[in-house]
Amino acid sequence: MSSQAPHNTLLIPGPIEFDDAVLQSMSHYAESHVAPGFVKTFGETLSLVRKLFQSSNPAAQPFVISGSGTLGWDVVASNLIERGENALVLHTGYFADSFANCIETYGAHATQLKAPIGERPSFEEIEQALKAKPYKIITITHVDTSTGVLSDIKRVAEIVRRVSPETLVVVDGVCSVGCEEIAFDEWDLDVVLTASQKAIGCPPGLSILMLSGRALDTFKSRKTPPASYYASIGNWLPIMQNYENFKPSYFATPPTQLVHALHTTLSQITARPITERYAIHRHASDRVKAAVAELGLKQVAATPANQAHAMTAIWLPEGLAPPDVLPGLLKRGVIFAAGLHKEVATKYIRFGHMGVSVTDPARSDIDKAIAALKEALTEAKQAKGL
Amino acid sequence: MSSQAPHNTLLIPGPIEFDDAVLQSMSHYAESHVAPGFVKTFGETLSLVRKLFQSSNPAAQPFVISGSGTLGWDVVASNLIERGENALVLHTGYFADSFANCIETYGAHATQLKAPIGERPSFEEIEQALKAKPYKIITITHVDTSTGVLSDIKRVAEIVRRVSPETLVVVDGVCSVGCEEIAFDEWDLDVVLTASQKAIGCPPGLSILMLSGRALDTFKSRKTPPASYYASIGNWLPIMQNYENFKPSYFATPPTQLVHALHTTLSQITARPITERYAIHRHASDRVKAAVAELGLKQVAATPANQAHAMTAIWLPEGLAPPDVLPGLLKRGVIFAAGLHKEVATKYIRFGHMGVSVTDPARSDIDKAIAALKEALTEAKQAKGL
Repeated sequence: MSSQAPHNTLLIPGPIEFDDAVLQSMSHYAESHVAPGFVKTFGETLSLVRKLFQSSNPAAQPFVISGSGTLGWDVVASNLIERGENALVLHTGYFADSFANCIETYGAHATQLKAPIGERPSFEEIEQALKAKPYKIITITHVDTSTGVLSDIKRVAEIVRRVSPETLVVVDGVCSVGCEEIAFDEWDLDVVLTASQKAIGCPPGLSILMLSGRALDTFKSRKTPPASYYASIGNWLPIMQNYENFKPSYFATPPTQLVHALHTTLSQITARPITERYAIHRHASDRVKAAVAELGLKQVAATPANQAHAMTAIWLPEGLAPPDVLPGLLKRGVIFAAGLHKEVATKYIRFGHMGVSVTDPARSDIDKAIAALKEALTEAKQAKGL
Repeated sequence: MSSQAPHNTLLIPGPIEFDDAVLQSMSHYAESHVAPGFVKTFGETLSLVRKLFQSSNPAAQPFVISGSGTLGWDVVASNLIERGENALVLHTGYFADSFANCIETYGAHATQLKAPIGERPSFEEIEQALKAKPYKIITITHVDTSTGVLSDIKRVAEIVRRVSPETLVVVDGVCSVGCEEIAFDEWDLDVVLTASQKAIGCPPGLSILMLSGRALDTFKSRKTPPASYYASIGNWLPIMQNYENFKPSYFATPPTQLVHALHTTLSQITARPITERYAIHRHASDRVKAAVAELGLKQVAATPANQAHAMTAIWLPEGLAPPDVLPGLLKRGVIFAAGLHKEVATKYIRFGHMGVSVTDPARSDIDKAIAALKEALTEAKQAKGL
């Protein structure tokens, strides 16, 4: 039995449903951010972030900072690239536009490699682009929350290492970390940035990043100072190193309750092999996608190879918009999200299937959601005479 | 009876002890950040922030952003002043150095007007400095957490309006908002920035700001784009305006649980006249300061007029350092903080007296702390043969 008040099941692509123990961690009594108890919790949490990324390279460095996932873009854009330098931004939806916007705010140039909605740039296009110009960083949205498109970051990293080995491989993993496979060391990634509230299963309010030794070296060899204060790696690096060595340290007060919740959820996640967690998410995603096909619906992400396992973006039947369907889902106790990609937002809905909703065998969230989707669609079509 | 697990009483200058209801708000079940329930909570919270600042001017604008109090400096430095422009930074301790550092990160010049430790720049010095050079902003740390020095922001604002009326008056209220008097409209302030975890009584993780119409006009007439992405007023302004009008809006996922906790604590705070809350804090502070004097100890903040009501920074007797005294306090269930001002950190301790520890008549935190301080000092002196 859950200790939570009765509520509709949140199946959007983040925030997601919380595990009871994670939620209870949010009610920890007040602690000093520099007292031994909290220092231990924070230090352990940083080590758990390494495990989450399957990283054992001591040159890599995790960061946990008070802020939303968006802040991770600022960390990259203000520390790892300088005014006038070039970034190659692979575009698979809304979030590439925003990341590019962030990069340009700090004075670098962002070249977007765009794909049609629901697709991703081809490996050939990426290779050609990398050969055409020197890029300081390449950014890839692992799962674009607006389209449900999954990028093949392992393959992209291979291309980068072969064609432009100095380019930093930066992965926006906000909607992927915790459910899509990531092997930080093995795939030779340089940055994965994420947020707490998606497949990690923690409430929102933490910006989480993993940086490679190569990324830190790039930071350390900057010709100009970092372009941000709050997002400065120079300000945060000693803090993270100290806490992980169980030494108190101060730059800004850490969000103590959220760090407790992150500690709890990462302890749960890493208690079993992380590959098992990926398999569970793949399996749940396959079930959802089969059910969507059975309903005669198509996904925004066009081909199986580029469909995320974290979520499914579903084209609505001609004549229906999100407001025709979402209330019918809500009536059945299920919350999906409307479309987010500006050009087509009124034509699709998004179903998030991450975290306890798929990993907790005591929950039947996915079955309930599939049944509700079927009924709500039928109802909406009847109401519109379709 | 508190619902919290037994724990030592946290009496540092933030984070502070939590009220049970505030803490329970942190365990709210998962919600979509754009669903009606959360939109209402966030919208109401923003209106409550106006009440907290005694502001009814519709041209003023509250902001509640995921991040620590430090982020508020970036909001000011990247939006309200431009590269090459001048800021006058009134220095009353550690935090002015950091704010100046933040301002210079974004390319403006910070001129610090320094006072000896425990003092504050005189009104005459401030007036002369304002006459000597045009300053885009003046920053004042309302209560410097490192020294316990209180600044007279009302009087400084009067001087600015008389001598340099276009200069924006920026108050760092991290350790003051919720316990030191602030009348945002009446005193004609332009920015007050604060954090959630001090006298507001919410867990850490929220950067809270109030901006005047004049500050927003200054932002809107920038010659260059904002120098930050995550801290950009341009990105956050429509979001705050929409939520306060109960319309969902998206730039970055808000920290839903912390917003609930802020809603709860601000509802409690504003349920009674805020002036009453200030009086309670003044009274508790007077008691602490009388007890400190009775122990023959002096405060870092030299004169009564510049002593904060939020906290007391206490010089230790010659021969004693914080590690000689803090464990004795802890043994008696009380947590104080060590010194923070780099030059003298080993010579003093800090006692925070904010929020439920002073406002909840069912608690005897202050009496307990005063008694513990007396005993711990005696014990420490005996141990050192003093």
